[in-house]
Amino acid sequence: MKRWNPTLMTALMLMICAAAGAEEGMWRPGQLPDLAKELKELGLDLDPDTLTDLTAHPMNAVISLGGCTASFVSPEGLVITNHHCAYRAIQYNSTPENNLLADGFVAGSRDQERYAGPGSRVLVTVEVRDVTDVILADLDAGQGGRERYQVIEDREKALIADCEKGEGYRCRVASYHGGLQYELIRQLEIRDVRLVYAPPESVGKYGGDIDNWMWPRHTGDFAFYRAYVGPDGKPADPDAENVPFLPAHHLEIAADGVDEGDFVMVVGYPGRTNRYRTAAEVESLFSWSYPTRKRLFEEWIGVVEEATSTRPDAALKYAPTLAGLNNASKNYGGMLEGFSRSDAVPRKQSLEAELQAWIEADPEREARYGAAFSHLAKLVDERQGLRERDLYYLYLARRSSLLSSARTLYRLSREREKPDAEREPGYQDRDLTRIRERLIRVDRSFDADVDRFVWRHLIGRYAAIPTEMHVGAFDEWFGIDGNSVDATYLDLKLGEMYAETGLDEQETRLAWMDATRVELEKSDDPFLRLAVHMYDADMAIEEQNKDLNGRFLEARPRFMEALVAFLDSQGKAVYPDANGTLRVTVGTVAGSAPRDGMRYLPFTTLAGVVDKDTGVKPFDTPPSLLEAMRRGDSGRWADEGLGSVPVNFLTTLDTTGGNSGSPTLNGRGELVGVIFDGTWESIISDWDFLPEKTRSIHVDIRYALWVMEQLGGAGHLLEEMGIEAAPEYPIASAGGR
Amino acid sequence: MKRWNPTLMTALMLMICAAAGAEEGMWRPGQLPDLAKELKELGLDLDPDTLTDLTAHPMNAVISLGGCTASFVSPEGLVITNHHCAYRAIQYNSTPENNLLADGFVAGSRDQERYAGPGSRVLVTVEVRDVTDVILADLDAGQGGRERYQVIEDREKALIADCEKGEGYRCRVASYHGGLQYELIRQLEIRDVRLVYAPPESVGKYGGDIDNWMWPRHTGDFAFYRAYVGPDGKPADPDAENVPFLPAHHLEIAADGVDEGDFVMVVGYPGRTNRYRTAAEVESLFSWSYPTRKRLFEEWIGVVEEATSTRPDAALKYAPTLAGLNNASKNYGGMLEGFSRSDAVPRKQSLEAELQAWIEADPEREARYGAAFSHLAKLVDERQGLRERDLYYLYLARRSSLLSSARTLYRLSREREKPDAEREPGYQDRDLTRIRERLIRVDRSFDADVDRFVWRHLIGRYAAIPTEMHVGAFDEWFGIDGNSVDATYLDLKLGEMYAETGLDEQETRLAWMDATRVELEKSDDPFLRLAVHMYDADMAIEEQNKDLNGRFLEARPRFMEALVAFLDSQGKAVYPDANGTLRVTVGTVAGSAPRDGMRYLPFTTLAGVVDKDTGVKPFDTPPSLLEAMRRGDSGRWADEGLGSVPVNFLTTLDTTGGNSGSPTLNGRGELVGVIFDGTWESIISDWDFLPEKTRSIHVDIRYALWVMEQLGGAGHLLEEMGIEAAPEYPIASAGGR
Repeated sequence: MKRWNPTLMTALMLMICAAAGAEEGMWRPGQLPDLAKELKELGLDLDPDTLTDLTAHPMNAVISLGGCTASFVSPEGLVITNHHCAYRAIQYNSTPENNLLADGFVAGSRDQERYAGPGSRVLVTVEVRDVTDVILADLDAGQGGRERYQVIEDREKALIADCEKGEGYRCRVASYHGGLQYELIRQLEIRDVRLVYAPPESVGKYGGDIDNWMWPRHTGDFAFYRAYVGPDGKPADPDAENVPFLPAHHLEIAADGVDEGDFVMVVGYPGRTNRYRTAAEVESLFSWSYPTRKRLFEEWIGVVEEATSTRPDAALKYAPTLAGLNNASKNYGGMLEGFSRSDAVPRKQSLEAELQAWIEADPEREARYGAAFSHLAKLVDERQGLRERDLYYLYLARRSSLLSSARTLYRLSREREKPDAEREPGYQDRDLTRIRERLIRVDRSFDADVDRFVWRHLIGRYAAIPTEMHVGAFDEWFGIDGNSVDATYLDLKLGEMYAETGLDEQETRLAWMDATRVELEKSDDPFLRLAVHMYDADMAIEEQNKDLNGRFLEARPRFMEALVAFLDSQGKAVYPDANGTLRVTVGTVAGSAPRDGMRYLPFTTLAGVVDKDTGVKPFDTPPSLLEAMRRGDSGRWADEGLGSVPVNFLTTLDTTGGNSGSPTLNGRGELVGVIFDGTWESIISDWDFLPEKTRSIHVDIRYALWVMEQLGGAGHLLEEMGIEAAPEYPIASAGGR
Repeated sequence: MKRWNPTLMTALMLMICAAAGAEEGMWRPGQLPDLAKELKELGLDLDPDTLTDLTAHPMNAVISLGGCTASFVSPEGLVITNHHCAYRAIQYNSTPENNLLADGFVAGSRDQERYAGPGSRVLVTVEVRDVTDVILADLDAGQGGRERYQVIEDREKALIADCEKGEGYRCRVASYHGGLQYELIRQLEIRDVRLVYAPPESVGKYGGDIDNWMWPRHTGDFAFYRAYVGPDGKPADPDAENVPFLPAHHLEIAADGVDEGDFVMVVGYPGRTNRYRTAAEVESLFSWSYPTRKRLFEEWIGVVEEATSTRPDAALKYAPTLAGLNNASKNYGGMLEGFSRSDAVPRKQSLEAELQAWIEADPEREARYGAAFSHLAKLVDERQGLRERDLYYLYLARRSSLLSSARTLYRLSREREKPDAEREPGYQDRDLTRIRERLIRVDRSFDADVDRFVWRHLIGRYAAIPTEMHVGAFDEWFGIDGNSVDATYLDLKLGEMYAETGLDEQETRLAWMDATRVELEKSDDPFLRLAVHMYDADMAIEEQNKDLNGRFLEARPRFMEALVAFLDSQGKAVYPDANGTLRVTVGTVAGSAPRDGMRYLPFTTLAGVVDKDTGVKPFDTPPSLLEAMRRGDSGRWADEGLGSVPVNFLTTLDTTGGNSGSPTLNGRGELVGVIFDGTWESIISDWDFLPEKTRSIHVDIRYALWVMEQLGGAGHLLEEMGIEAAPEYPIASAGGR
């Protein structure tokens, strides 16, 4: 096989993105100048070139929270994001007596702002550099998968280690098109993040799981953080002496909002899309993985609900877990429904056939890409053969919080025996703070009885899969024989483990962080013993998966290179799948025709909140707000056309999970809303973008401002964002509700 | 108390109906000339006076099926109605081998038309006469409830007996405004009704219970009957010698359909609305009756499903029962949802307070109506005190098909001891045919195991209500002690009853119809023994209820008289609640804004059927139709604006159950569709009409014609309806599919 030249391909990719509609696509900022004409036509006032400079306004004001996006909205580090992105921070500061989820929160002054909890981060991207040449230098198809995997990992680690020199930075290597291009991304990592404002859950999560993914929507899904740094202006551990971070740039609020048809863009960190997967991959996902996961997650939800039904303390702890499971299982449902009405598989099959024909039509292409598709297809088959083990064993059967902690601790001790640069990513010195935070955070969403109850159920599900997918050491530990489980023995075993472990104590968990391998192996803590017992078997699976992944790292880019070249030959633009890196999506405010015989209108209003309200969670708007809505009191935030305050709005923007909390900007780069969801018909867009149906859902900034004024106590925050005081809502903070 | 003058009030009522909007209201035909101006503005081309003559076109073409409405669409008695109105007839002609529900049916010629089954009727209204004076003559408030009840019943029976002289007529006395006015209605009763055409269930019930009450909708809910009479042209029992009935008038098909905004009207027999109930009545219904019934019906559905899950034969028999229960429980859900967002109770309370103030403001009014509201309120309280006994005992605990038959037989023998004119309505000589048909029809929806299983469950629910609501004789029979049931004894008892009874045999049931009271009392059939055992207790309850109803018959009209006079003083129109009599509702083709942030469009199209189709019931369009839809083959029935065949459409018409199957007419009185449902947001309209949300759902006649042409074999029926043959769909009948 011939070596292929990644640099050439990168250049090719950057050339070919100007065709087709700009509305589909999570564009890399550097691609935007190529779309200049369409952006102008859509209504962008800014020069697209200004969007390519990540250190300038407005890009520099957009930040990552790790999993969510957010943005600076004041010169003193005030951050706006979604209520659901701040959910764990609000929960962290809640107790049954002082339940901020229920009551909401407003810090009347800086000293009332509350630490958002371990693991909370604000990440400001400061530099992005193409490192494809470095990563792929001298690699060819000759290596085995395992070796390729290791070479790439080692190079990534070396680049990261170098990049993180100088305190307060976090770096990562992002790969595009499955490994066709690599970028090194450097982010300032602010680790003192504080909660400034959250509306009550009955606003911020209005509609709850029932309305999740739905339109019409009436959710006030916004909250505010503030980033703090040390007195020297550098990232620092949480400390009373810390001071607000002063960002170089922040977004202005466009309090006049948007209208139907207006240009909008979202800048953010979308997590993952899979628009270039093969027909076979899509088929397997939708015929097996999603239905199976949906079923398992629904069971899991039932098990957690059963275990917490009479225990409000445990219920509070597991609320975020349940929210996550509900969200995922509803998402899978939407995927499956979208897929059942989609022709994605035959369309992909046609595309693959056309691609193959195009390749075979030219000897040079044949030589270069001839085997690209079949090679990838073989690997896809191979991975499918392992899907039951991967889901039921790796993902589910080890899913006890205490086992996770034990596995982390033992693995850490093993990795520590190596020089830092040779350790598994996630276990290097740079990761110790995060490991420590994770071990602390366990308490917030852990209850021994619930953990055991859930784990017992998941072990049972694992036991039922074909025995050739079983892991002997695990079966041995729990007395699983073939597919049969001795329930009495399992209960006895689990009872002992939870009774005898010390890992349910935070102090104990943290103390073990400094232990050596030998010390851990001598421990008689049953969870540590299980972690040690499983180590060799788990490592063997890991090695097997790394080898397969290494082979994917050769095959996928080859296929993508061919596909990109083919699409280019047809004048079609190619944006890379989302991979957690900064992207821009552009479009307009627009309703849609989700189904024959009905339309989604682009805006919802206060009247719709009143209509939905039943007084019962999740439709239990705070009485004072409901009263104001019933009075038709729009304050100063009414949209003239609607005659009411716009609550949520729809856009044609191409977004996915990770975009949550992203600022929605108008053509001048001003903030008009915050994205928090997509419609039911859009869920499938992670796999298949349908322009006429895909819509993102945003909270209108005017609703956020209306809520803050109506509930009171937040005038100082509005002032900080440059919103002039209204006579009826004086700025002077009351310091409370 | 002063006597009130019903004749004066009737005249008053007829005077005051011209005000306010015509779109709310199920108008009596006689009221339409008063609405002439608005009808013209809405788009009625016909002279409203033509709509008052029930023997002329178009009114005379509209007929009742008893529970559903239908209309003549050919000079030879061809009738169009809903698929769901013909459901029992289709089921009656289905077997597991020849399942017309699944496959649909087309009679290729007259001799292939199939008897619709016992109890099927076509009722043609021929005369309506005001009989208020006769019914209420010399009645005043001095009588007790029981006496008033009997006097009114006796007078009704006498009027009916006189009216039914001359064979083939069926008469009833209908009361308006709870007894303020009475009318005698004479209908020609055609009892040889035959099934002519039914689309497959996958068209006629497309969307099934999932889409029931929903928009967007894609249901081809139409079917055709033909009315047959004896060779002499008079109604006759089913017989091969019978000939098609030749109606004096029939409706023409407007094959060009309707557009958004067009005038439409529905003529039909709406069953029951309750728009004038008191706040207290509404409150009790929505806080207790509907939620309780919904819960019980859902259980009942579960019990039937469990009992039939492994028995396709029983499942087929219970399909209509399940459809009815599903429909009702979903309806209750819609009612409750609508009510939770409604201010009907406070609005009614205000109205009642205003009414009382208006009455008290004038001594004459005070003398006449002073106690009207409080008197009615007292009776409402009294009835609420019996609601658990009425629901759990009368309605549920006696709900075995065999017990119903036994009770009917024994009651018949008791009533037969009296002269015909003195018998309980339902047990007179005029009722014998219907009783016989009912006893025959049992077999079609009866299975002993399912019947027992359901009954056992319902007895259990009865046992759990407060014991003061229990009926001693019933408890005694089943060994119910307080609230406790000995399950072993109950099962033993039920097992014996079903093992020993002969009533599961049609022949035996019919044979008992001629037995005397003494013969029945000597029978050792366990169901007959139970019927005898319960007789005295049941009669005591019946007497108590008749007395209460008699008092309502005095109080309700008094209240309604006051309310009508009060509304009249404000210039507000008053139409009477639906009571199964012929009504006209007028409006336009229009979408709606059911909720903030979305719109219903007025039409659905073929594309929407394809979108919904999953290939799995109830979204399993026949492959040939689906293929045509995918091809965009609209035949000659496309709407130009929509670019497709309209499937269903929405109108502002005010309709309810009983209107099912009613013809939807354009301004020229031509048929443009058939109504079959209302939207979810309209369910509450039985209690509270909301003009901006209430919408009726119609099958577009163009979709019916498209389906008939695509499936083939029905060209002769199109021709009979005056539709010219299309070259590609020759008239010549193939006599099959």
